[in-house]
Amino acid sequence: MILVTNDDGIVAPGIKALVEVARKFGEVLVVAPDSPQSGQGHAITIQQPLKLREVELFEGIRAFECSGTPVDCVKLAKNVILKNSQIDLCISGINHGSNASINILYSGTMSAAMEASLEGINSIGFSLLDYNFGADFEASGMVAEEIISWVLEHGMGPTKLLNVNIPKGKRSDIRGIRICRQAEGRWVEEFQEGTDPRGEKYYWLTGKFECLDERADTDIKALSENYVSVVPSGHNLFVAEALPFFSTLEK
Amino acid sequence: MILVTNDDGIVAPGIKALVEVARKFGEVLVVAPDSPQSGQGHAITIQQPLKLREVELFEGIRAFECSGTPVDCVKLAKNVILKNSQIDLCISGINHGSNASINILYSGTMSAAMEASLEGINSIGFSLLDYNFGADFEASGMVAEEIISWVLEHGMGPTKLLNVNIPKGKRSDIRGIRICRQAEGRWVEEFQEGTDPRGEKYYWLTGKFECLDERADTDIKALSENYVSVVPSGHNLFVAEALPFFSTLEK
Repeated sequence: MILVTNDDGIVAPGIKALVEVARKFGEVLVVAPDSPQSGQGHAITIQQPLKLREVELFEGIRAFECSGTPVDCVKLAKNVILKNSQIDLCISGINHGSNASINILYSGTMSAAMEASLEGINSIGFSLLDYNFGADFEASGMVAEEIISWVLEHGMGPTKLLNVNIPKGKRSDIRGIRICRQAEGRWVEEFQEGTDPRGEKYYWLTGKFECLDERADTDIKALSENYVSVVPSGHNLFVAEALPFFSTLEK
Repeated sequence: MILVTNDDGIVAPGIKALVEVARKFGEVLVVAPDSPQSGQGHAITIQQPLKLREVELFEGIRAFECSGTPVDCVKLAKNVILKNSQIDLCISGINHGSNASINILYSGTMSAAMEASLEGINSIGFSLLDYNFGADFEASGMVAEEIISWVLEHGMGPTKLLNVNIPKGKRSDIRGIRICRQAEGRWVEEFQEGTDPRGEKYYWLTGKFECLDERADTDIKALSENYVSVVPSGHNLFVAEALPFFSTLEK
């Protein structure tokens, strides 16, 4: 059983492309948000109940739209729909826009995949470097197929989560696949300020990503050279190297 | 300048306790959500504008309530209110409930601190192992004061983020402070199922945390022995050990 989810919502072209790839590998279940959930990170819905509705969007494939976040979708898929029966692979995306570098932290697409990985399920998040709703997912679908095929054959070894980002363009423009580290970077934020119809001031988040990493083996570097970036990722944020520094705080 | 935020909302007793500690160390700015935002993880608000309202809740201290997530609060504090002037320390909490182990991923409290750390700001999230709104924050306030004092003196060395969890009880019941690793664990989920007033089925998330880690130096272990756990944490999810495994995927 392959679980497919995303954060752009169940009607986004990116998830349709991924479902068409997934169905080549076996039985597929789709559980995805009923509205765009970009930037939801690892949010879960605890203050209110969730709705789940079966929809017919993908021929011959069971699909549900969910009122919650991408992480909620994975929890509902596993616990309610599949009643904890086996999920062989969870794939999330194809996201409309990059989730390279620190964007893994903000991304609902990657958090959904990470949630499945926390349950021991091999999980991959796919993102295309094109924010347009009408983006062309042909090449990214082909790349997703290559990677899923490799993972189903080889497994995922010491990690359970891959962050895959795919350059824009035709398949022939993509130079290859590189295994990378997560680049250091930051968002330089600006807020669009305005006044609402009631005369109250508002702030609307916008900004520009800035790579702060010159190393040759980062995801940002690979993407800049038209390679697909694959970052083996985890969920443990502990920094072991910091232990000696804090030793005098211990008592 | 010390920035104080949380995820339980600006009127939660936990943030009041933390503000009272923070004011002993210098100038304080409070920017916190106008409603409970537990479980919001690293969510940001991009689909709609944010509101920011100055409130008088803490005598002599500038405070703003924000309509967004904990991460939004940090972005607005830094970019709009402080216009990128220096923040010496960001402290988040005191959270009503544990953020040990993988709960760092779901926690708005920890994500707010992590967001500040991404900007190079030394950041600490504090959580008390008591979910009650009326929890007693006296001992946890004292612990927060000790740790803030240490960090202001020594800095934070090779990391910018600490995940601090504090056992319930009196200060004299707390045996000490331990620097720990993030325990491996999982949530065993159950969904409360019901039918809403319109006859539609709903699912409400609930569950039980299960520690899957027997090591002696984890946060869960320290807390179980009535020690404060301090986990030096990062934001880079890359798993370097996985590189050789995926080498044949590279091409």
